Amino acid sequence: MDIDAARKDTPGCANVAHLNNAGAALPPRPVIEAVAEHLALESTIGGYEAAERNAVAIERFYESVAGLVGARPDEIAYVENATRAWDMAFYAIPFAPGDRILTTTSEYSSNAIAYQQVAAARGVKVEVVPDGRDGVLSLDALSAELERGDVRLVSINHVPTHNGLVNPAAAVGRLCRQHGVLYLLDACQSVGQISVDVEEIGCDMLSATGRKYLRGPRGTGFLYVRREMIAALEPPFLDLHAATWKAPDGYEIRGDARRFESWERYVAGQIGLGVAAEYASELGIEAIRERVAALADGLRERLAARPGTTVLDKGERPSGIVTFTVDGHEPAAVKKAARERGVNINTTSPRSQGYDPRALPSAVRASVHYYNTEEELDLLMSALPG
Amino acid sequence: MDIDAARKDTPGCANVAHLNNAGAALPPRPVIEAVAEHLALESTIGGYEAAERNAVAIERFYESVAGLVGARPDEIAYVENATRAWDMAFYAIPFAPGDRILTTTSEYSSNAIAYQQVAAARGVKVEVVPDGRDGVLSLDALSAELERGDVRLVSINHVPTHNGLVNPAAAVGRLCRQHGVLYLLDACQSVGQISVDVEEIGCDMLSATGRKYLRGPRGTGFLYVRREMIAALEPPFLDLHAATWKAPDGYEIRGDARRFESWERYVAGQIGLGVAAEYASELGIEAIRERVAALADGLRERLAARPGTTVLDKGERPSGIVTFTVDGHEPAAVKKAARERGVNINTTSPRSQGYDPRALPSAVRASVHYYNTEEELDLLMSALPG
Repeated sequence: MDIDAARKDTPGCANVAHLNNAGAALPPRPVIEAVAEHLALESTIGGYEAAERNAVAIERFYESVAGLVGARPDEIAYVENATRAWDMAFYAIPFAPGDRILTTTSEYSSNAIAYQQVAAARGVKVEVVPDGRDGVLSLDALSAELERGDVRLVSINHVPTHNGLVNPAAAVGRLCRQHGVLYLLDACQSVGQISVDVEEIGCDMLSATGRKYLRGPRGTGFLYVRREMIAALEPPFLDLHAATWKAPDGYEIRGDARRFESWERYVAGQIGLGVAAEYASELGIEAIRERVAALADGLRERLAARPGTTVLDKGERPSGIVTFTVDGHEPAAVKKAARERGVNINTTSPRSQGYDPRALPSAVRASVHYYNTEEELDLLMSALPG
Repeated sequence: MDIDAARKDTPGCANVAHLNNAGAALPPRPVIEAVAEHLALESTIGGYEAAERNAVAIERFYESVAGLVGARPDEIAYVENATRAWDMAFYAIPFAPGDRILTTTSEYSSNAIAYQQVAAARGVKVEVVPDGRDGVLSLDALSAELERGDVRLVSINHVPTHNGLVNPAAAVGRLCRQHGVLYLLDACQSVGQISVDVEEIGCDMLSATGRKYLRGPRGTGFLYVRREMIAALEPPFLDLHAATWKAPDGYEIRGDARRFESWERYVAGQIGLGVAAEYASELGIEAIRERVAALADGLRERLAARPGTTVLDKGERPSGIVTFTVDGHEPAAVKKAARERGVNINTTSPRSQGYDPRALPSAVRASVHYYNTEEELDLLMSALPG
């Protein structure tokens, strides 16, 4: 991978050492330009008129995103963000009392809140599959829970926000297929960072965001729903794009994944997200994964070797998300010290760690992307207090 | 009102005669710049870092929008668009079997679809209050239906998408208050065009969009919920911004209207929408209303006087939305002929006219804003075929 070219194509690289890619990554020039150009066109000729003129680019979004995740264009919906994409899938599931939802200890609290809301409203049980000795979701335990029956949904994240893990998404998919159980994957932190192929993973639904490893615009996300599952999932919200009105009291929901969309949207963001998907595909996800893993592993080693600094990540194949603490310094103070040296990092809190029985303390989170450099990691190391 | 100044402040006015303001209006320079500047900042220093730096502008959104509609900042939520804003309110209502929803003949089909979805799922009855002789929602009929009891919700639009009407929102509000019935107002086409004051109207919930008469960005909207009602409305979707996770199985929903938001958002759009609200407030909604009404009335007169052209609008105090047909020419062909002369108009279809027993045929829709001129209306008239 030509890192110099990638950095030249990323205006932000000239200003900051951006190690907050699990928050929102720096967008590359083609994404920035696609968004800015469509917005400019809207103010020049009108919003609807701009959408008509750029209809091909808007439609291309579906092909670009489908191409990135190994789906078909009619299985992709453009949604306002990853949360709403996940919501449109999760809240569409026709749960019945007694149904069980299986999830994992590393689940994001936002999803955990949604589980509890549905549990309370519909008499559904939420159960957390225990981890194995390696600290990762135990496939044996999952298998045993599936055997017990009544499982309506297995819902996990691919890469948690806080502990560097990559969950065994494809192995979970095989077990779900075997038991004929719905499988929803929150791929918010994985798309754009590692290979995410819906066929290989075997998920029925997958949600993702634009702004993180995919380097797309803020306020964009997408949902994948397997073609065979679409008809069984009535979206929790319906509008005149998702359905056709049959006066005086009927409606017909469309047959493709766009039933999960709303008609009105951030059109410039949709075009930009399509461009971001193409950009990642062109670079090659495997090359991206290798580069991200090498940088993150190197950073973990250096942090672990530093006195008073503790790396908190777990898992065999850790992601680009590196979490650590610095003795005697609050994570917010570490973030501030780094910012003063031009390094963007973030903090993570136990409040976001849904069901983790060994929840991490508040910690510092440095998340690397392929356009980062060893020099930027040097800068972070030198900026750490204490 | 200084029309020349308004046009100079609107770059699009140099390129098109934009009579599609009920679709999406041309944004003024301060909105365009606020959005572009935040997006540029995001690509220069990072998305989260830009939001931290512009925290004051983001927070100001709530004050600006509250100021525009006579609400308090804690009663305002930023939502992805008007549809989702309306959804977050409507689907939050704890309907019970036998509850009645009262609406109006001019209701938008998108809302009608949502009513039917909830009717089927929860045994709720949807009833359409008949119009009076003037073609507008009959207050006597509404009053009689409220007297009959079991009404859980009165839900209407303020300005329909298709027939020029302004519904008697405040009179409906007084009846709802009298009967202690929830009142949801879809103000998608009214905010930015006519006075919308939640105290005067007496609604409990109000949804609106950025892109139409408010001249804000596409992909933005807001929801107002009266402070006293917020606690009774559990949002249909919850995330880690709307609620706090209380492990292992609880959550606490926040007390203000931001419970209806999602954390991730189009931040640049939020700032731009706040600027648009301030811009409208500074110009003065009453001055805007007068100018829009004068232009629309003049256009209706000219269209009515033209042989073979029929104006379809109704109501005593019609909005800036002018609908008409041209004998022997499909609306789409009229739109195309106008576009060729640099005039943006739109078409409207019976499919969007929820419950109208006298649904309009497919028609042409020209929607004027204060920055339009008589010369632009001349251009439209001269562009009409036949």
